[in-house]
Amino acid sequence: MSYHGSARKFLESASIDVGDTVRVEKPDVTYEGMVLDRADDADDRHIVLKLKNGYNIGVEISDAKIELIERGSEPKIELPPVDVSEDPNLPDVSIISTGGTVASIIDYRTGAVHPAFTADDLLRANPELLDMANIRGKAVLNILSENMKPEYWVETARAVYREIDAGADGVVVAHGTDTMHYTSAALSFMLKTPVPVVLTGAQRSSDRPSSDASLNIQCSVRAATSDIAEVTVCMHATMDDLTCHLHRGVKVRKMHTSRRDTFRSINALPLAEVTPGDIKILDADYRKRGSAELELHDRVEERVALIKSYPGMSPDIIEWHLERGYKGLVMEGTGLGHCPDTLIPVLREAHDMGVPVAMTSQCLNGRVNMNVYSTGRRLLQAGVIPCADMLPEVAYVKMCWVLGQTSEPGRVREMMMDNIAGEIKDRTSIAYFRGLIR
Amino acid sequence: MSYHGSARKFLESASIDVGDTVRVEKPDVTYEGMVLDRADDADDRHIVLKLKNGYNIGVEISDAKIELIERGSEPKIELPPVDVSEDPNLPDVSIISTGGTVASIIDYRTGAVHPAFTADDLLRANPELLDMANIRGKAVLNILSENMKPEYWVETARAVYREIDAGADGVVVAHGTDTMHYTSAALSFMLKTPVPVVLTGAQRSSDRPSSDASLNIQCSVRAATSDIAEVTVCMHATMDDLTCHLHRGVKVRKMHTSRRDTFRSINALPLAEVTPGDIKILDADYRKRGSAELELHDRVEERVALIKSYPGMSPDIIEWHLERGYKGLVMEGTGLGHCPDTLIPVLREAHDMGVPVAMTSQCLNGRVNMNVYSTGRRLLQAGVIPCADMLPEVAYVKMCWVLGQTSEPGRVREMMMDNIAGEIKDRTSIAYFRGLIR
Repeated sequence: MSYHGSARKFLESASIDVGDTVRVEKPDVTYEGMVLDRADDADDRHIVLKLKNGYNIGVEISDAKIELIERGSEPKIELPPVDVSEDPNLPDVSIISTGGTVASIIDYRTGAVHPAFTADDLLRANPELLDMANIRGKAVLNILSENMKPEYWVETARAVYREIDAGADGVVVAHGTDTMHYTSAALSFMLKTPVPVVLTGAQRSSDRPSSDASLNIQCSVRAATSDIAEVTVCMHATMDDLTCHLHRGVKVRKMHTSRRDTFRSINALPLAEVTPGDIKILDADYRKRGSAELELHDRVEERVALIKSYPGMSPDIIEWHLERGYKGLVMEGTGLGHCPDTLIPVLREAHDMGVPVAMTSQCLNGRVNMNVYSTGRRLLQAGVIPCADMLPEVAYVKMCWVLGQTSEPGRVREMMMDNIAGEIKDRTSIAYFRGLIR
Repeated sequence: MSYHGSARKFLESASIDVGDTVRVEKPDVTYEGMVLDRADDADDRHIVLKLKNGYNIGVEISDAKIELIERGSEPKIELPPVDVSEDPNLPDVSIISTGGTVASIIDYRTGAVHPAFTADDLLRANPELLDMANIRGKAVLNILSENMKPEYWVETARAVYREIDAGADGVVVAHGTDTMHYTSAALSFMLKTPVPVVLTGAQRSSDRPSSDASLNIQCSVRAATSDIAEVTVCMHATMDDLTCHLHRGVKVRKMHTSRRDTFRSINALPLAEVTPGDIKILDADYRKRGSAELELHDRVEERVALIKSYPGMSPDIIEWHLERGYKGLVMEGTGLGHCPDTLIPVLREAHDMGVPVAMTSQCLNGRVNMNVYSTGRRLLQAGVIPCADMLPEVAYVKMCWVLGQTSEPGRVREMMMDNIAGEIKDRTSIAYFRGLIR
């Protein structure tokens, strides 16, 4: 077990192990439930119980007494054998795990998280997948997605490449939700793929009744068997546990801290609405299965910064990045692509040094247009690259990737302004921006 | 006129002045229209004509010929006299201008921008205002809002204070849209007001047929005469030129680069729907007229940074801010309030040095909850202050303001986590986040 310090002593004093059902008495309340394991980094002042109603609760132990009600059986559960024999009539889908909530297959009895992600784990949790595809699972990383970084994008892209090269008809990438849209953008630029590559995750872990993991995984496997051979994100479309949206990997963003329908296409419609049994196309302008040859372009430049502009921001911040040898800067400006005019001289300096500077908007929706106001025109004259309707996060990832392909300033500018993976749309539809209350 | 260089010579060669109607012949096209003045910083290779259809066009002069059709009358236009005599039955509304598109009262004949903003200008453009209030105008600043900074927030707050102190029944602040939501947050914290303070702006200047300036100003004056004695933002509610939404100044954000309905309440409903003639309350939980005494708390700390986190971000960036003497940091993290775990030691160092670090989410919607995942718990242990459902921009402004009131770390934490001006809501409604395509 992962308990340590006082909490471990507290449990050991009554010879209680993870999985045992216990009664814990506190001065004013008594709990009955099964002792769950905790994260390694948890404090030693609480134990966690799974109550009969299914909820987990942390109990502070300082004034608590504990007694055993029923010894748990062996923490290793008896699982029904899973039939993973291949069905030649079904497509082959590989599921690659990078970590995050969706990959945390919870042992329902002990609450412990399986760090090693296998196809068996997934299939036990989602036996429905067996009817959809021959599933093969692989853990590439096991990290929380806030700790993602460019070198992990590369590892993930290589793993996806290997699966497709080995014959997978589609790949699902399980990923934490925090930075899934950065990774989906990275894979979009790094991979040319003849088959679907679908990122998915979960906002609630699978030990919670409200978990979205199961629907997201099933819809992702469905999307991986579809005709949409692009890098996409497949996550809940609404708060109901019924349908997912399939978003283009370069046009999507996490837009809510906790809701299951947090991922939204920005400056685009979702490509499709997906249920475990069906795909309904919403935007027919996608790359079809088999129409591209498999290619991997996995070089990235890590010395790139994403810098948000704000009132009162000092030009020294930009200066520091130049002194530290950053090779590219992406500004998250205001409105149509502006920043305080006090920054213009140092941005020109960056450009003159051969460090490309790209401009996006913290409005997120709409497109940068730097010809309307004098600040925009002056920024253009200083060499700043306008990023059209690209999200700031996508422009950042793209700059890392472009600088991995070339360091020639003119070519960097061209590539940043070219539509490479669907990240720039020539036309904007009014349907892309809604969100009205009434 | 503001033409210089070749463009000035081109006009002077035919003795043409701003306001004259001319014919310009190019090898493949001929234009007829009135010569408009240009911005001082414009290039000298174009002249600008107002065509008969009302649109302005820039004409490249290198291969052009110009001839006079009709001499313009004096650039000073004969304006109908405006009756600005006070009507004792109408409320007194002061309009304070800080600059931006809305305050650029275009001289329709010459295209020149009036930098000096007077009530006369406004009333000529919007005679409807005369029936709504006794209007008094005042220019405080004349800047593009991307150049706003904390010291200008202070100037603006003082100007609003003076107007209210002098008896205004409501104040409208004309402001550029780029950073209007930062300024509305600043005024929300700096001013306790017994009357409405309404910020407004325009996405399209008033010389364009699609300008939103007129409706926004009229609805803002209406809101300034209402019972809602808070700092608010009043801008188009939809793409139609019919209604505005009145947003709480600490719960609003510019969410589209160009659309007129760009301002959206985030994690809140708009307070009201406003037309020039009517106000419909959407959220009755607002401060009523007369229920607060007028107070000004205008000290701010300028050495505060808003820092967006991204995959691969280096802790050195935080280190640099500490070395440079920044007094407070606001992180725009991912998901529920996370950042790369490589940043945790330096954020702890900041906290230990007495530099408060606050955490918000780049999801924008939803609230930070740092108890769910280990990264969040570790950040809390490092002393990071969770910002609930505050927008990153609002948390940044609030940190500047809080550090202007106190430098005592415990008090800073308390004030950051307290609801001071409506910036923190205890409860979140599912109605706050929509934007579904279907």
